[in-house]
Amino acid sequence: MELLQRAKCFDGEIQVHEFTSTYLKGKAKFSVYLPPKALQKQKCSALFFLAGLTCTEETFAAKAHAQKIASTLGVILILPDTSPRGDDVEPGDAWDIGQGAGFYVNATEQPWSTHYHMESYVVDELYNKVIEHFPIDPQKIGITGHSMGGHGALTLAWKYPHKFKTVSAFAPICAPTQCPWGQKAFTAYLGDDQQQWLAHDAVELVKSKGALFKDVLIDQGAADEFYFQLHPDLLVQACQDVKQKITLREHEGYDHGYYFIQTFVADHLRFHVNSLEN
Amino acid sequence: MELLQRAKCFDGEIQVHEFTSTYLKGKAKFSVYLPPKALQKQKCSALFFLAGLTCTEETFAAKAHAQKIASTLGVILILPDTSPRGDDVEPGDAWDIGQGAGFYVNATEQPWSTHYHMESYVVDELYNKVIEHFPIDPQKIGITGHSMGGHGALTLAWKYPHKFKTVSAFAPICAPTQCPWGQKAFTAYLGDDQQQWLAHDAVELVKSKGALFKDVLIDQGAADEFYFQLHPDLLVQACQDVKQKITLREHEGYDHGYYFIQTFVADHLRFHVNSLEN
Repeated sequence: MELLQRAKCFDGEIQVHEFTSTYLKGKAKFSVYLPPKALQKQKCSALFFLAGLTCTEETFAAKAHAQKIASTLGVILILPDTSPRGDDVEPGDAWDIGQGAGFYVNATEQPWSTHYHMESYVVDELYNKVIEHFPIDPQKIGITGHSMGGHGALTLAWKYPHKFKTVSAFAPICAPTQCPWGQKAFTAYLGDDQQQWLAHDAVELVKSKGALFKDVLIDQGAADEFYFQLHPDLLVQACQDVKQKITLREHEGYDHGYYFIQTFVADHLRFHVNSLEN
Repeated sequence: MELLQRAKCFDGEIQVHEFTSTYLKGKAKFSVYLPPKALQKQKCSALFFLAGLTCTEETFAAKAHAQKIASTLGVILILPDTSPRGDDVEPGDAWDIGQGAGFYVNATEQPWSTHYHMESYVVDELYNKVIEHFPIDPQKIGITGHSMGGHGALTLAWKYPHKFKTVSAFAPICAPTQCPWGQKAFTAYLGDDQQQWLAHDAVELVKSKGALFKDVLIDQGAADEFYFQLHPDLLVQACQDVKQKITLREHEGYDHGYYFIQTFVADHLRFHVNSLEN
């Protein structure tokens, strides 16, 4: 694992690391924020943040304004890239498919199936790598994300609840099988058999697996320009049907971007840490 | 003036505007953060932030994490671009000269003197424009900046103290006549006569104009990779010589980037607003 960059921030440290990923068959970067507590080698809770379309391992660290509260709460932030990268990786032909748009699934269809294994990369390879390298308490790991990454957070939490004890999301794609972004990506990565898609749709996972978490926090801008892609109403309905507590907060006037995220990110960190530490 | 973008943030609003600038002879963009108090049409204090090399009107809004505290304090943030822009504007041949590197002076030498008039653009054209369009109390305007923009903040404050009542800076170029960045830019923009450079050097301006402000807040990372370009020691000495109070805080381990700025930005906003409002 190679340390590419480091910068002090709120008495902690942002680091960018790179290693050769078995699942992605190539170099993979991620950022990590280590609060002062982690630099002092004390065991910390950790929060994975999965980013949205076009983003990288840098986006959340630069734009979400989470380090101040992470420093105070003593939580480690783990920030993966959004897809495999490199000249030998299928680039895709648009911003919503291919590099920058891995959708946190393991692709089964060519040309994607060689490198696009973001699900296993996150929940297995990167997950174990960060526990090995940083002072993370493996019993205190949560997951969150934005848009495509909100889809990733919800689906991976419901598939791997023994790995992620808490889950939240910002403007997540709740039902990818029912929106243009998800349908395009799943057709490419998973093929035409829509039965295969259901294992990667948060609404379907909640319906089939039931209530798994104490609460789920979702923040959603009411002026989100991609609202039609997101279907938070379907997630709320599915949660109610299985008696999963969910807190959906719709915020008047807020859009889909990082100015929305930075406004509410402190609430998410507190939501996770309060639950993980108690 | 055209509104290009707007996004709600901490109950206020980030806006990006564009207008045709007389001084820059072309379109000019700037960002503004309007706290809730400004959206309610109440008169607010305002703070100009001048960005550094390679930055744009977006950088501070996205990366400095200042909106939360600006919302609380009720201060309007004015965020200009760092140079004229456009196909007809001399681009320069490197990241430290030309577009993205206006150095907040009025160029007198060709090919720069056609468009590169960032000093007049900021202190006259943009200054009047924002007072006209937003609920700014003209008696409560401060200025700050980073690196090249820290040089801009200090020099414009010392040249126009009737316009800027408070001044601070993050890792400013304090003595551009004595560092490679400044010497390269001033030779290009102002010519070979180094006497002409002195009117744009903060250390020289402090020496010649004396003490003008109640205090000057400078934050500087001790691990700043560009420390040799900055000369904070010369600024402190010049201030001491003319009995100008200056508070230089050197922060162990912090570098030159926005992770450094975000750590200390709240202190700067409080520094300005406390002084402007009292």
